[in-house]
Amino acid sequence: MEIQHSHANFSFEILARQNRARTGIFKTPHGDIFTPIFAPVGTQATVKSLTPQQLADIHANLVLSNTYHLYLRPGDDLVAEMGGLHQFMQWPRPMLTDSGGFQVFSLAQTRKIDADGVTFKSHIDGSSHRFTPEKSIAIQENLGADIIMAFDECAPPYERAYNQQALARTHAWAERCLQAKKRQDQALFGIVQGGIFPDLRQESAEFIASLGFPGHAIGGLSVGETKEEMNQMLEVVDHCLPEDKPRYLMGVGTPEDLIQGVLRGVDIFDCVLPTRLARHHAAMTLTGRLNLINASFSRDERPIDENCSCYTCQYFTRAYLRHLIVAKEMLSATLISIHNLHTLLHLAEEIRSRISAGQFEEYATNFLNELEQTKATKSRQ
Amino acid sequence: MEIQHSHANFSFEILARQNRARTGIFKTPHGDIFTPIFAPVGTQATVKSLTPQQLADIHANLVLSNTYHLYLRPGDDLVAEMGGLHQFMQWPRPMLTDSGGFQVFSLAQTRKIDADGVTFKSHIDGSSHRFTPEKSIAIQENLGADIIMAFDECAPPYERAYNQQALARTHAWAERCLQAKKRQDQALFGIVQGGIFPDLRQESAEFIASLGFPGHAIGGLSVGETKEEMNQMLEVVDHCLPEDKPRYLMGVGTPEDLIQGVLRGVDIFDCVLPTRLARHHAAMTLTGRLNLINASFSRDERPIDENCSCYTCQYFTRAYLRHLIVAKEMLSATLISIHNLHTLLHLAEEIRSRISAGQFEEYATNFLNELEQTKATKSRQ
Repeated sequence: MEIQHSHANFSFEILARQNRARTGIFKTPHGDIFTPIFAPVGTQATVKSLTPQQLADIHANLVLSNTYHLYLRPGDDLVAEMGGLHQFMQWPRPMLTDSGGFQVFSLAQTRKIDADGVTFKSHIDGSSHRFTPEKSIAIQENLGADIIMAFDECAPPYERAYNQQALARTHAWAERCLQAKKRQDQALFGIVQGGIFPDLRQESAEFIASLGFPGHAIGGLSVGETKEEMNQMLEVVDHCLPEDKPRYLMGVGTPEDLIQGVLRGVDIFDCVLPTRLARHHAAMTLTGRLNLINASFSRDERPIDENCSCYTCQYFTRAYLRHLIVAKEMLSATLISIHNLHTLLHLAEEIRSRISAGQFEEYATNFLNELEQTKATKSRQ
Repeated sequence: MEIQHSHANFSFEILARQNRARTGIFKTPHGDIFTPIFAPVGTQATVKSLTPQQLADIHANLVLSNTYHLYLRPGDDLVAEMGGLHQFMQWPRPMLTDSGGFQVFSLAQTRKIDADGVTFKSHIDGSSHRFTPEKSIAIQENLGADIIMAFDECAPPYERAYNQQALARTHAWAERCLQAKKRQDQALFGIVQGGIFPDLRQESAEFIASLGFPGHAIGGLSVGETKEEMNQMLEVVDHCLPEDKPRYLMGVGTPEDLIQGVLRGVDIFDCVLPTRLARHHAAMTLTGRLNLINASFSRDERPIDENCSCYTCQYFTRAYLRHLIVAKEMLSATLISIHNLHTLLHLAEEIRSRISAGQFEEYATNFLNELEQTKATKSRQ
């Protein structure tokens, strides 16, 4: 069976490489994505506590939103009627929606998986729903993001038999997603699964690559396995996926993970971590986290990070941020989210520059060494 | 006893009048306040859910903060150590702190009032504290706002005997506040009380005016009395207070109240209403409120107010705002606060222009007529 793919609205050009790391431009109908990139997550059509203006101020570009959440609330039909997700949430730059697969398996109450799809109950009101590959694509076409994802099954990383079974479904569903897709202004990415099993990962990457997607995602990582296992899986997949298409490592977003991912050929990252940590009082820096609720910060006149150029670090002290947290003021989430997202967006920018300048490997080595030293110092304290 | 007043850092110039309404400039160490003005409230050293940048974007100028709250948390000594309130919360324009009097009487648990001051228990942890006029001034000097307030007692509006007793204390405390004040870069305003009793209001206004404060506040209104009673009290006070000093109507902030206040010689207003309503899903317009959680807005593509030029109305639909509210997203409070505050700040700007142009009385008459018609239409529906 021949499946027609039109990727006319999309193109990926690699501008520079250093060993496995690469920097490039992925062109979309809503603008160019310079890779490697970190995408903030706007689960319910909003990056929590930030306006689009504040996102633009920290140079956010690609923003992710969640199919499962938007299908349930406000409904993808409503979003379509309001002109689509870009118009609805007023984000004029590139957007990506996931397939709903991960949330169905992680958030929904009672779910029943069969070869055709998944029946589940909403985590909001317990109402019953069914996702199939065709339904996931239909929802994502209603939402209208630039990049959409194939419907997949994310199995627990260490269960081999379950991963084999889930992989078969994920592969069959990938083909059905390609067939179901109608809109020409969206790029559908396939997803590689396979837990922590190198042979399954290789099989999956080779199969998914054979389907001719304009981009590939690596799913089922950062879900409980070790960093070493994640990096090993990335290396397996890196060597199987075509080099001329972008690779997206789903749900991964610490500074260390960005460096390790780029070293293994990854182009796109996303994670709720920066905004979730912010709502729990934790500020990210390149070498660790500050829990700003600690009393030690109550009279600390320094910014979160003296080397950071974000709005929060330019104007506000740790003492003020701690006061906002203790007083339960919403502004703390906003200001720390600005800082945390800026940290990852700025790191991605630095990575792009270093690759272009042929200095990334040295930069990555220094970065990881420094991180090791910081961890060692902390563990001795 | 002669009390020395230095107001060298402050001056009030009236630029234009129309009957009792006036527009002018009150100069402070942190910039000029163009009156009539509406001051957003930043209770705990933050206007809830907004960054100072967002406040500046809607042309906020004077911002109020609360002595009672900041004394309890994070402590006025800490704020002083961090460089004062302007520096701490990064608001570079004029600021005003209240005296803590109103909160002690409205928020604190068990309180005991005597001639010297008030002993009360914190609403946060039940700990015991004591405010006197001298303590209130000392706290406000630590905080360092441009305008500070005399410590007063706000009695229930309809209790005559209580009001007489509270007035005697308020007047004695006003004199003690003047004596206690040391900083020359702060303007201390006296507060007129007297419930809904014209003779008490007149007595209070005349006494407070005799003390030579650089500005006067009208307290104890908008606390349960009718609009007619409030307006009557404003008229009594208006004719007793010196015209060459600014008048501040405390805690008042609907569009109608601004118009009615300015018609009766008021220059400064503040209220938590715009931001409090925003957190409870209500958007303010000049002619009423929209409760954006209503299902009727779920597919409404209009902005809150088609005549509004704020960020929220320029970009976001009622449908999107309703989605944020239903999904319990913090961004709804931010976006509606921007709109609500902009509505009052923009109205104050319009009032200033109309007074300068000699058109305010006509504008006010039309405004109040239109409001009446809207209310009549709504009550017939």
